[in-house]
Amino acid sequence: MRALQIVEPMKCRVVEVPTPRPSRGEILVRMIASSICNQHELKCWRGEGYYWLRYPLPPGMPGHEGVGTVVERGEGVDKVDVGDVVALTGMGGPPLHAEYVVRREDAVVKVKCERVSPEYAAPLELYACVIAAIRKSGGVFGCRTVVSGLGPAGLVAVQVMRAAGAAHIVGIEPNPERRRKALECGADEVYHPESPEVERLKREGVEYVFEASGHPDSIRNSLKISRDKVVLFGYHEGEIPINTALWFQHDLTVYGSRALSGRGGGIENLRIAVDLYCRGAIDPSKLVTHRIR
Amino acid sequence: MRALQIVEPMKCRVVEVPTPRPSRGEILVRMIASSICNQHELKCWRGEGYYWLRYPLPPGMPGHEGVGTVVERGEGVDKVDVGDVVALTGMGGPPLHAEYVVRREDAVVKVKCERVSPEYAAPLELYACVIAAIRKSGGVFGCRTVVSGLGPAGLVAVQVMRAAGAAHIVGIEPNPERRRKALECGADEVYHPESPEVERLKREGVEYVFEASGHPDSIRNSLKISRDKVVLFGYHEGEIPINTALWFQHDLTVYGSRALSGRGGGIENLRIAVDLYCRGAIDPSKLVTHRIR
Amino acid sequence: MRALQIVEPMKCRVVEVPTPRPSRGEILVRMIASSICNQHELKCWRGEGYYWLRYPLPPGMPGHEGVGTVVERGEGVDKVDVGDVVALTGMGGPPLHAEYVVRREDAVVKVKCERVSPEYAAPLELYACVIAAIRKSGGVFGCRTVVSGLGPAGLVAVQVMRAAGAAHIVGIEPNPERRRKALECGADEVYHPESPEVERLKREGVEYVFEASGHPDSIRNSLKISRDKVVLFGYHEGEIPINTALWFQHDLTVYGSRALSGRGGGIENLRIAVDLYCRGAIDPSKLVTHRIR
Amino acid sequence: MRALQIVEPMKCRVVEVPTPRPSRGEILVRMIASSICNQHELKCWRGEGYYWLRYPLPPGMPGHEGVGTVVERGEGVDKVDVGDVVALTGMGGPPLHAEYVVRREDAVVKVKCERVSPEYAAPLELYACVIAAIRKSGGVFGCRTVVSGLGPAGLVAVQVMRAAGAAHIVGIEPNPERRRKALECGADEVYHPESPEVERLKREGVEYVFEASGHPDSIRNSLKISRDKVVLFGYHEGEIPINTALWFQHDLTVYGSRALSGRGGGIENLRIAVDLYCRGAIDPSKLVTHRIR
Repeated sequence: MRALQIVEPMKCRVVEVPTPRPSRGEILVRMIASSICNQHELKCWRGEGYYWLRYPLPPGMPGHEGVGTVVERGEGVDKVDVGDVVALTGMGGPPLHAEYVVRREDAVVKVKCERVSPEYAAPLELYACVIAAIRKSGGVFGCRTVVSGLGPAGLVAVQVMRAAGAAHIVGIEPNPERRRKALECGADEVYHPESPEVERLKREGVEYVFEASGHPDSIRNSLKISRDKVVLFGYHEGEIPINTALWFQHDLTVYGSRALSGRGGGIENLRIAVDLYCRGAIDPSKLVTHRIR
Repeated sequence: MRALQIVEPMKCRVVEVPTPRPSRGEILVRMIASSICNQHELKCWRGEGYYWLRYPLPPGMPGHEGVGTVVERGEGVDKVDVGDVVALTGMGGPPLHAEYVVRREDAVVKVKCERVSPEYAAPLELYACVIAAIRKSGGVFGCRTVVSGLGPAGLVAVQVMRAAGAAHIVGIEPNPERRRKALECGADEVYHPESPEVERLKREGVEYVFEASGHPDSIRNSLKISRDKVVLFGYHEGEIPINTALWFQHDLTVYGSRALSGRGGGIENLRIAVDLYCRGAIDPSKLVTHRIR
Repeated sequence: MRALQIVEPMKCRVVEVPTPRPSRGEILVRMIASSICNQHELKCWRGEGYYWLRYPLPPGMPGHEGVGTVVERGEGVDKVDVGDVVALTGMGGPPLHAEYVVRREDAVVKVKCERVSPEYAAPLELYACVIAAIRKSGGVFGCRTVVSGLGPAGLVAVQVMRAAGAAHIVGIEPNPERRRKALECGADEVYHPESPEVERLKREGVEYVFEASGHPDSIRNSLKISRDKVVLFGYHEGEIPINTALWFQHDLTVYGSRALSGRGGGIENLRIAVDLYCRGAIDPSKLVTHRIR
Repeated sequence: MRALQIVEPMKCRVVEVPTPRPSRGEILVRMIASSICNQHELKCWRGEGYYWLRYPLPPGMPGHEGVGTVVERGEGVDKVDVGDVVALTGMGGPPLHAEYVVRREDAVVKVKCERVSPEYAAPLELYACVIAAIRKSGGVFGCRTVVSGLGPAGLVAVQVMRAAGAAHIVGIEPNPERRRKALECGADEVYHPESPEVERLKREGVEYVFEASGHPDSIRNSLKISRDKVVLFGYHEGEIPINTALWFQHDLTVYGSRALSGRGGGIENLRIAVDLYCRGAIDPSKLVTHRIR
């Protein structure tokens, strides 16, 4: 089968590798689509940020968001059938930028595609990570909220928070195109981080802020705007100046989330993402900018 | 002003009483509409269930769900203006089946009626009670759920749970008209309590059951269907046979809720109901069966 | 090796069976002591309550609380050493009324016996079950509490709740000897269920009630006394008359707990029981009434 | 009556002021003792940190931890009697460094002094603040914990966490006298922040860290040591370099607490502190270094 291989930073090729076979409890999946996250995947592609990477990377890496069709079942598999469309994450098997992958049957979630297109199920892993963070922080039902940073994770957060019953969502982001996209995804208002509205938010406060960029200014703003909860979803390596007195002044609780491998994680979050997708409560197609075959 | 008075069980009349005046911190509200709950209100009307009631009831009683327009402000009021439409509950002032009522300004929630009709804000108190129960039980985001009993409270629960991101909602109810209504309100499936599907639910279990009828069979079914949480929202007076071993067998947590006066209660829940109504996430008009002038 | 076998209800003998050998990831444990719970174990002994039991029972059954010394390690074991004293439950291997048992290494907890006797670690499984229930219900730190039923589980609950920082503990129990024992275990007050003090408790309420007997009257009293949380730890099979209106009137949350196999369960609770035992915060020796060799 | 007045930074005198009289719902308290916190009080004394202070301060200020005897009751008071010893905070009345103060009756907690000395109830307000923070963070029952910084707040945290059932407590502090004191208060181990043991803690992690100094190094260490929860109780004004990637790497939740005025606050926490004191579960006498008459 063919697989994508990053041979050195900023350079990849398609290579021929043996097609895997499912062992006991595993299934063989023919990939429909895999998507590219702009955190982990772009670091691998650019060769930045992970000192421990050795190039060429293994074929298929780092693919960890995807969807495919079950084409073969190993012994003892009884929860999925040949022909089922399943959503995949990086857990329970090899990386996803390949024609075929194997997975443990309990590491996938069936997607019922009566009303939705299978290919847009590829980025549901990112939704699952956002869902894990939101559930860890107690949910957003009825909350007045801010999403700071409206890249892919921020747009996903807007969609998920809308589906989870947030009462009001304000998006903050310098890029006007992304702000426009956030309105499409369900934000009620969007502002540039240097607008007077953001100063007002800092003075008046909201109860829930989801930080989705990892940018130091966005992290600092999030702590200043919240009067209760902050989720630090964006990732920033290295120290940044933080006023820890805000924890006392704003009575804060600040949540991190190790995505699907942490305390609030697990396949249950992908199950929820798939359920929301199949009923049309979230729309991953809004995140797709390019298609590569 | 005129007010409705229940003079004896099953008999009411319109009486003339002095129009109240707002004291310090209070507002005077001209009622747009008040609604009738089928628990507390019908007991007062029928003279059943409350041994302590003395007829004739005070004018306006029991009205505890309503909406009106602010027409006068007492001293020191600064959060609402004359002309504001506000949602009302039984808290913070006299009963609502009257032309005018006073309320403390912090006991009402402003309704912005740009996109919605003010009159349908009347039953938002019931929504607030359901919201209080759902928040007390940890929310339903991503949960596979059952609503048992599809009278007004059950239909409200279906709408609220849909708005709060429930992954799947099954309604159980003997009355076919109510089952049909539940589908309109957002239920995914509806069944008669004696259907084989309900037996299947008992065997397979779901994580969250909202009991909204108070009927002994519905209460017992709810404990048998859940494998995690049950909310007992329906009210039944007197003892009924219950198998408490289900708490162990199904690892249950069973929540009661004292509506807006309990631990998870308060005006915050009405604020959430109003926010959801104003954005169209819930639809009280689906509950309205009759209009009385 | 020798093992105890219940050959028919109320009759047991010591039988000779092959000594087990540890597989990969397992350890062989020579038992120091196993204890007898008065729920599961006495049902097996009396032949009552479990319609599915077939006599003679397998040798060693139903032993599920015990302590022993590691005498051999299977391949790949690296968390425990030969000579370690370990606490055992029914999970991860065969029953415990035998000279030797095997267990997965991650199903045991090491007991450091510098200050405590190893044999009293046998009933720590029961403590772990109580700890699981108390943690599931949010803990008792600072709470004014009642323990209803002061058999072994109730006495364990008194000790654990004292160790967990309960502000006040009232025990309720008809048997005067058990009431005396509860005072020794850390209860502040103890009453007969028919005393006027218990009527006062029903009127005034406390925030947390731990029901530890399974007796219908104790279950009903628990629901009447609590104004917030009830843990139903005691087990009663069959329906009993319950007033579900108390959930509304007392704003209740009522928790069940599937012991170590449920949602709040797992080996972590045994780890906590062992930690508390080793520091002298709980005292299982108070539960020991007879020794059988 | 006499009151203490800080007339300028580092200078105080005793002044004569009118004795207050209790209004409706209030009581008059003759002070037994008031204590001095080393955060708020020392800032007022030194004239540092609060730009808004104007000297001379009002008589009695900043006293916000104390105990006294009820000597008179205003109209409508029915929860406390003349002669009751009551614990006081800064809430519900004037500052406490005075011979007499008035308080609303629901802002005090009765201290039953059968087994304990009334004077040591003075610092219970600090215990209440620590208790509020620990409850907000979900409690410490069964947790392996670290307290970083062993000044008064840290020693109080050690005592409270021991009373709340922490499984293991490690104290970290540069001052050897304070480390010794922490062992007396119930810590299991104590280390200098630069010891190899602290490096080991960073590598291996614990589930709960209580930061009680506000020192930047202690804050940073706390985030590095925890693998689940951190309470930021210590207060540091101004920005410090923080590695926010630790939230992801260590799956952190970091709690601040606005003491008794915040979300987890209120008089309930003082009630718990008094209950623990009266049963001997905490020992404020260990914090007293000087007595001033």
